[in-house]
Parts: sequence; C-alpha cells; structure tokens
Amino acid sequence: MKPNRKALHIRLYTTEALAAGNPILLTKDQVHYLAQVMRQKVGDQFTLFNGRDGEWIAELTSVQKNHADIHLVEQVRPQRAEPDIWFLFAPLKHQKNERIIAQATELGVSKIIPVLMKHGIVDKIHQERWQLCAAEAAEQSERLTVPIIEELTPLTLLLSKWDNTRTLIVADESGAGKTTAEILGTLKAPIAMITGPEGGFAQAELALLRGFPFVRGVGLGPRILKADTAAITLLSLLANQCGDWNLQPEFRSA
Amino acid sequence: MKPNRKALHIRLYTTEALAAGNPILLTKDQVHYLAQVMRQKVGDQFTLFNGRDGEWIAELTSVQKNHADIHLVEQVRPQRAEPDIWFLFAPLKHQKNERIIAQATELGVSKIIPVLMKHGIVDKIHQERWQLCAAEAAEQSERLTVPIIEELTPLTLLLSKWDNTRTLIVADESGAGKTTAEILGTLKAPIAMITGPEGGFAQAELALLRGFPFVRGVGLGPRILKADTAAITLLSLLANQCGDWNLQPEFRSA
Repeated sequence: MKPNRKALHIRLYTTEALAAGNPILLTKDQVHYLAQVMRQKVGDQFTLFNGRDGEWIAELTSVQKNHADIHLVEQVRPQRAEPDIWFLFAPLKHQKNERIIAQATELGVSKIIPVLMKHGIVDKIHQERWQLCAAEAAEQSERLTVPIIEELTPLTLLLSKWDNTRTLIVADESGAGKTTAEILGTLKAPIAMITGPEGGFAQAELALLRGFPFVRGVGLGPRILKADTAAITLLSLLANQCGDWNLQPEFRSA
Repeated sequence: MKPNRKALHIRLYTTEALAAGNPILLTKDQVHYLAQVMRQKVGDQFTLFNGRDGEWIAELTSVQKNHADIHLVEQVRPQRAEPDIWFLFAPLKHQKNERIIAQATELGVSKIIPVLMKHGIVDKIHQERWQLCAAEAAEQSERLTVPIIEELTPLTLLLSKWDNTRTLIVADESGAGKTTAEILGTLKAPIAMITGPEGGFAQAELALLRGFPFVRGVGLGPRILKADTAAITLLSLLANQCGDWNLQPEFRSA
C-alpha cells in the first residue's frame, strides 16, 4: 500500500527501532504535536522513520495529553541512504544557520560539519538544536535519514584527519579557483564541500587548503555571493552532479 | 587604475548618467549612508554604477548632513550585461521574498517576475521595496546592473504573452518532470525558470504549463524541497549552465 500524501502527511523521526509489534515511545514534543497541534485521534495514521528501518505507517491506539500509544501497521518504504555528500560551512548569524541546515538537509547531504575559521563570528554552536532542525527538515522533505551534525571543528584539525579519497570542493572567490565547468564534470561521491564565513577565508586558510591533494578550489561566477548563498549554490551543483537526482519523490504522482 | 577592494569597498547604485564632469545627485539615503553610517570625508572615494555606463570612482568634494557633492574621477569597469536569465517565483512570506530577491540578484538574473498562482499566499507585493532590495544586493555583489522587478502577474497572463524563443524551466515536483541530467545539458540563454508557492503548483497550472512548447518540467531529486530552496537550487543550476560563470570577480586577487 502506498500512502496517499494528502491523507498521510505527518511524518515523524524517531530513534526507536521500527518493526512489526515493536512498542514505540514517542517524545513529549511528538505527543504534543500529534494530539494538540494536529488534533489526531485514535485510528488516525502517520508515518515514522529512524534512518535504519525504512518508513512505517503508525496508527494511534490511544491518545492522551502527555502520552500516546501507537501500533506499527506496515513498512511503506524500504531504507535508503542519502548520497555521500558532506556539507562543511563556517557558522553565520543564528537564524541563517538553522535555515542553511534545513536547506542542506532538503538537498540530501549525509553529514554537516560546522567549521571554525579565522574570520568566523561564531565560536560555539547550538548542536542539539541544529540536530532537531535537521530532523524536522528530514520529516518535511520525505528523507529517510537525518544528517549527522558534528561539533564545531577547527579547520586545521579537520584537514589533519581527512580521508584522502573524499574530494573537498572549496568555494574560492579569490579568483584563483577553477570554473565550475572545469571542476564539476568528473566529480563523484564521496565528496565534501566547504564555504567560508561572511568575511571570507583568510589567506592562510586558502593557502593551507590548496596544499592538500584532495582539495579543488572552484569559483562561482563574477559576482560576489553572500556566505549563505554561496553555500546553497555550491551544494545545489554538487547534489545535482554527485547525488541521486535521477530519482523522483516517491509519494507524489502527476 | 584598478580599485583596491579593501580601500574602496563602498559601491552605490544611481540612476544618474555617469560621465566625466557630470553633476551627480545622490539620494538622501545615500548621503546619510556615506556621511553618517560610513563617516566618509572630503577626499574619500567610493564607486557608482547605473546599469548603463560601467562603474566609476567618485570622490567626495563636500559633505554635509543632507547633501554631498562628488567628482567623478574615472571609469574603472566598462558596462557589461548580466546573463539573459529570468527568475519567476510565487511570492512567499515577507522576509523570504527579500532574501530570495537578494539571492537571485547575486546569482545574476536579469529580470525577476513575481507570479500570482492559485496556492500562493500573497496577492500584492512591495515592488518598490523589493527593487531597493535588489539594488542593495547589486551593490554588494559587484554587479553592474540591477535586475528589473516586474509587477505581480497572473500566471495565465504571463504565459499568454510569452516569447516562444525563451525556454521556461518549471520546477515540477509531481514526478512528471524530467531529470536535471536530461534537461540541463543543452540549455542556453535566453531562458527563464519558475517555481511554485509553498502549497505547490495547482494541477490546472501544471497542465496549462505543460501545454506550451517552450516549457520544460524538471524534477529536483527525490526529496521535497521547500519553495525557497527549490527556487535558489534551480536558479543555481541554470546560472551555472546558461550564465557567465566562466568569469571571476574582477576586484579580487589570489
């Protein structure tokens, strides 16, 4: 049975194991959302995913203000991984970060790494809130996984433990980057991308990056892009080139 | 003489003609910005562009609270047009629109057309404010033009007067769109793109669009993108494919 998207539009991410007969403990926020916000009743259905067991139809068997019981009806989508694309960025001002994380999640990255750079304006992040933000974007975008959000990591540390087989594309507005036409055509996952803070990469950071064999600098045209625009623009190109965009949304029909 | 970007980082858009000896009337807001915000003094330099006469170095010859006189020193960049890419979108909630307009400007579109659609939530727009927003993004992104922002136009009217030689790419998440790999490779300017409102295109709108020979529907992968993400993602792909991204920023150096 394929769920009809209109009738079954609530999707929730859970850490619980999903299998027929498994008891599922919803979080307090999820119960509140189902019962109070969406006013779901006994017998109403929604779907659950956990990043491991595919997507399941769940049916409410009891609903109280602070607790709900559900019954897992059946699996409607098998598990599938997102493309092996890592999204690295220098955190910007608060609201921009949450939007960038949601958009990167929609675009299908598997991992998000906030990177500490010299001209960055942020020296700590709200990792837990960002992870919730990614989960919400996964729910709404019909992903079957939630990207991992790592801790804020200094650029030098990140590069010192980098796996050489993962190409790192650097958004380089200095004029020294190659063109997208030169860089993109041959790229394949595993891949990663990195964009700088509002003030740009420091000269020393660009020099450091250029010294690694897995790094490719790319220019994004003659105009100066803001940091958040550059991040989503470069990710769009990489997701299109190295991702799974030969596929269509599963729950839509023309 | 090439201006050094650090020393000469103020760029202003003007509607005045730029030529040696021309008197230039700055707007009240521009005088305030130069004198009060940026604390510029007599002898300080910035640049001006008007979308027609290239970019000129201007030097302040007198600065008062409400008036400033300037002398045009010399042209530092000849006029250049942006790529012939039109960006059509269904207006979203207030703040999102201004961000989308700024980002589309950074990415180099020549025209922005807000489109009235059945599931849209907006039935009038702040055209003048949006035009200022585009001018500001042009100033900051080192464009030499400001994209034209048209009036809010009903989809049917827009299509009825469409020039057949301009391909219109529709972000079609229904599952009926072709893949980006099938659509993008052969595209050339003049081109346009359109994305729907948060509730998506209506079935009748998609059917209408598909009836025109200049329309190509494209899917953006298996995840459901939010309206603003879809707009900037599709534009990134088109700007990369049909734009001027073989060029680099002129005022940067590695």
